[in-house]
Formats: sequence, structure tokens, C-alpha cells
Amino acid sequence: MSNQKLFNVAVVGATGAVGEQIIRLLEERNFPIQELKLLSSARSAGVKLTFRGQPVIVQEATPNSFNGVEIALFSAGGDVSKALIPHAVEAGAICIDNTSAYRMDPDTPLVVPEVNVDKINEHRGIIANPNCSTIQMVAALKPLYDRYGISKIIVSTYQAVSGAGAKAINEMLRQSKEVLEGKASNPDILPVGSLPVKHQIAFNAIPQIDKFHDNGFTNEEMKMILETKKIMGDDAIEVTATCVRIPVVYGHSESVYVELKEDFDIEEVKSLMASAPGIVLADNPAEQVYPLATDAAGKLETFVGRVRRDLSNPRAVNMWIVSDNLLKGAAWNAVQIAEYIAIEQ
Amino acid sequence: MSNQKLFNVAVVGATGAVGEQIIRLLEERNFPIQELKLLSSARSAGVKLTFRGQPVIVQEATPNSFNGVEIALFSAGGDVSKALIPHAVEAGAICIDNTSAYRMDPDTPLVVPEVNVDKINEHRGIIANPNCSTIQMVAALKPLYDRYGISKIIVSTYQAVSGAGAKAINEMLRQSKEVLEGKASNPDILPVGSLPVKHQIAFNAIPQIDKFHDNGFTNEEMKMILETKKIMGDDAIEVTATCVRIPVVYGHSESVYVELKEDFDIEEVKSLMASAPGIVLADNPAEQVYPLATDAAGKLETFVGRVRRDLSNPRAVNMWIVSDNLLKGAAWNAVQIAEYIAIEQ
Repeated sequence: MSNQKLFNVAVVGATGAVGEQIIRLLEERNFPIQELKLLSSARSAGVKLTFRGQPVIVQEATPNSFNGVEIALFSAGGDVSKALIPHAVEAGAICIDNTSAYRMDPDTPLVVPEVNVDKINEHRGIIANPNCSTIQMVAALKPLYDRYGISKIIVSTYQAVSGAGAKAINEMLRQSKEVLEGKASNPDILPVGSLPVKHQIAFNAIPQIDKFHDNGFTNEEMKMILETKKIMGDDAIEVTATCVRIPVVYGHSESVYVELKEDFDIEEVKSLMASAPGIVLADNPAEQVYPLATDAAGKLETFVGRVRRDLSNPRAVNMWIVSDNLLKGAAWNAVQIAEYIAIEQ
Repeated sequence: MSNQKLFNVAVVGATGAVGEQIIRLLEERNFPIQELKLLSSARSAGVKLTFRGQPVIVQEATPNSFNGVEIALFSAGGDVSKALIPHAVEAGAICIDNTSAYRMDPDTPLVVPEVNVDKINEHRGIIANPNCSTIQMVAALKPLYDRYGISKIIVSTYQAVSGAGAKAINEMLRQSKEVLEGKASNPDILPVGSLPVKHQIAFNAIPQIDKFHDNGFTNEEMKMILETKKIMGDDAIEVTATCVRIPVVYGHSESVYVELKEDFDIEEVKSLMASAPGIVLADNPAEQVYPLATDAAGKLETFVGRVRRDLSNPRAVNMWIVSDNLLKGAAWNAVQIAEYIAIEQ
């Protein structure tokens, strides 16, 4: 590793649920770092975190924070990305943005390394990290897309509360305890922190993640629909999504119906996914083996099971896709992109 | 009501989760009962229950229990139904069976009163009550079937633990408490009591309800597929189901994609469902109104919301259907059938 170039890296949103995982992964993956700058809002500035055994004081992220920074990982909300990324790019940093701010910008590659790693080199300073629920689905479906083509995807999600941040995790655990004790649940954050109506998430299923569009779909559902087409590079894929929050802490699960363009052998479908990068096939009905959120939590891979030919449409296949939404769905996908950038330079 | 004929009624499985609801509904609905016989396994015989303020001792259900019984509601498992229903029919009782024992028998009507009440009169002593997850879906879709025709249904379920009985409820609540306290969850019953592998249901989503068929679908999924065709009286409807258990106590939720045979106006779709018997339209995204399991628990109706035209297929509509699985999904549908029988006689 002596010839490995070392990078000055910044993590914006260092004290958040995803930022914390990014820092942990940079350390675990032994990312080639010269200097690590941890940035946050003014409110969290001054917090002392640890990286490779050394204390690092979190600083307030400002337009002037990026002098000398070569790679900046943003995970502090869309508004922060919009406000600061232009300054970071100006200062020469390659920005990997985990928010939705630049995802649909035609000049910004939207990258899941297992699907379209080649797009990384087309960046103009910004690479967007897709939405958590999209990443695991396209990673699992890519080998099928390459082999058979995909005409249609219908997905229903079972999403963990950690996707709504640390406060939503705390709310769900607090509510669960209160309901178990026979008390009122007092919803305060979910389904959407910035909207007026709150619903109990403990022992419930809430069919709303993010705000509604006029077409009746939520923003989370529109992200899955639009981002899937962009990442696959195929606007002809029909995508329908229903996104639902359930009382799970870590790990999004997805029930996915996929119509392929060619006839397939179901064993080949399984074997294509089993041998795909980043995918683990967990599929043995006889032994009751299938992916579970509690098993996927803390893992970097995407798990696929319940793979079965549709009974009505012989060109359709149904499956169950699970991954840790804070890892492959956010921090790990971003760090993977950073690793590709580091290797290229 | 003085001219109302009164019936001798038996409830088999009186001490179970569904039996308990049947007894409560017979009382609340003021069902015309001459004598109520409560039957159970030998293990629960002797238990004292209360009906209309009077104590009723639960007796062991045997082949000789049905002398003089005119209407018998069975909810004690498929094996009990198979063993005892022939004797009850022989004794002259009309049997309403809440198990899967006779559902696919060509001589047995499978009835959801809002969908095919006319089939009740074709019975030969047995009327089958469909599976909980099927009932709420066909009740909600019937007005669309009548107006436009339905070619395809793709459903993913979010099913409550009460569907697996009182022991599964206790297990989920116990596990939730243990996990919140940082203890191991020790799964003991779910996903399927009679199978060897157990999975944690607290803070998880388990994509297995009932045993697997060789085609990779579970028995619960096959029930939804086959029963929907039988109840709708239309084998040409394509149905795909993925059935998932989530940590909810009462109320199954369903994400449903439906392809209609004709063009439709989305407001007409909503209005057809809003005016259908037994259906409540709870659909106002601007006010964050949509059906929730916690709201549906304890209610007799089926709730529909998130109704929206598909963005890829202009003849498809997506929706979210929720109902109390022990009520419309079991006890209430059975008591509704009993009420029709009482009115006819």
C-alpha cells in the first residue's frame, strides 16, 4: 500500500445515522485517507468523534469547509447538499451525495456500483447515491436485466424506521414500549416529520413515506420509479411502487414482481443472482430459508429469496429482496463509490 | 321481532381467537338464537363463557354434539372441520366453516356476502368462509369487477400475528418486550407452529405464512390465488400473491395492483368503492388519510385508500386495503353468512 495515493476526505452530516456508518466503513475498509474532516450543522459542531483511535472534532459545515478536500461524502439532507456541494465542487472535491438533491440532474451520474459503475467517470464533480429502497432492488435485478431484459417491475416495500433517521428509531422503540404497557402511543415524528399529521408506527404499517405528489404516489414511490429507469439506463422499464413503513429498526424488505423479456429457467435465474456481485441468494423453502430484515441488519450485501416463477405469467418472476438500508442503501454504496474513485486516481 | 324464527346455534372452537369474536358478534348483532351450544376440544371443555349475561359451559365437540343444531359455525382448525362437519350435516345443521377444509370443494359455496351472496342458497349443508387475506381483497375489488372487469391482480400482504392465533399474539408481544430489553427473542411459534424452523417476528417481516408448495408459493399465497378465482366466479383472473407476516396485532394490510379490462375514471373508481357495501373509502393524501391496521382493528368494514392510477399501465389501479382479520376476515364474514341463512328461513 506504500504507493497508494492518500486522500483528504470530508464527511458532511457526520453525526447523523448514515454519517456514523460512513465513518465506520471508511475505518473498517481501511480507506486511503490523508486527513478526515468531519462536518455537521452548527448545532452538532464541537462533538468529538473517534477515527482510527484518534479524536476528531466535528466542525460546522460552511461554504469554506472544502479547501483541500478531494472526496466529500454528503449525508445531511437535500438542502445542505444544494447549498454546499457547488462550493465543494468549486474547491475541487469530488462529491458523493446521499440526498435526492442531484439524483435526477441529467449531468449527475446516479450510481449503484454493481449496476453502472462505468458512469462514475462521467461525473462533473458530483456523483449521486440513489434512494435506499431503489439501490437494493436494482442491485438484485441487474443480472436478470443483463440476461433477459426487464419490461415491468411492481414492488411493495416493507421499510425500516431507520430510513427516517435516529429520531424515528427512538420514536418507534418508545411507542412499542408504551403500547406494551397499555399507554397511548403519542406519535410525534412519523410518517413525515415536516407534515402535520402523525401516525403510530409501533405495531402498525403506514403506507406513506415522504410527501404525496398530485398523482397520488408518494415521493419515495416516485424515487423508486424514476431512479430505477435512470440507473438501469432504460426509460422503457415500467415501474410501479408502493412504499410502506413497518416497525422494523434496520433493513428494508421488498416484495418484487418482475416481467422479463425472454423465457427463463428459474434455476438459472437463481444462479445468476447467486453469482452476482454484492448479492446473496438465501432461498431454500424446504428449510424455511429466506431473507429477513433481522438477518440483513449490519451486513453489506443484498439478500434475495422466495424466487419463484409467476403462476399467471410464465415470463414473470416473484422474489423477496432485503438489505440494510443504512449500509448498502446508503453508507456502503457511497463508500463503494469513493473506493472506485480512489482506485481510478 | 316476535315472528322471527329462533335458531339452535353451535360454535365449534368457542375458546379460540375467532370463536370468541363469533360469540361476541352473535350477541351484539342480536342474532335470533333459541339455544347456543359452545363446543371445543376436550382440553378446553368445562370453561365457562358468558352469552347475553348467562353462563354457558363449553362442551367437548364430538360427532354426537349436533342433534337439534340448525346452524353450526366451525373455527377449530381444518382437521376438526373434516372430522365433525359430516356428522353435523347428517344431523341437519347448516355448517359455516371458517377453515380451509371445504373451501375448494366444488360442491361447497365459498362466500363473501358482498361478492357472491347468491351462492349461499346452493349449499349442500356446508358454506365455506374464505381465508382472511382473500376476503378483504375481493370485497374491495368487487365493485370494480362488476363495472370494468378485472384481468390481473398482484397483491403483497402485511398480515397481523392474530391470524396465527392467540399464541402467536402472545409470542409477538413477549418478543417485542424482550428485544426492547436487549434480550434474545427465543422464537417458538412463528412462522408456522408445526414446522421446525422458527423466526423472530418482533421488529421483523417474515415472508412465510403457512407451508410451502413445490411451486415456491406458500399455502397462504395459493389460497389467495385460488379462492379469489372461485369467489369471483372467474378462472381467467390472473392472481399473484406474496404473503408476509409483520409485527401487527390485529388488521391485515394489502398493497394491491389491479389491471381492469376497460378504461376508467379514477374518481369513479373511488366513488364505486365508497358506495359499495361493507367498504369504507379512507383516501385523502392531502390530509394524510389512508387506512391503517390500528384504525381498522375492532371494525367490521374493509378500508380502502391510496387509490391511484398506475403510471405505466393506464388500465391499472393501485390501492391499499385494510381490515380486521379476525372480524371481516373471519368471525364477521361467518356471522354475516349466518344472518343471511336466518333471513332466508
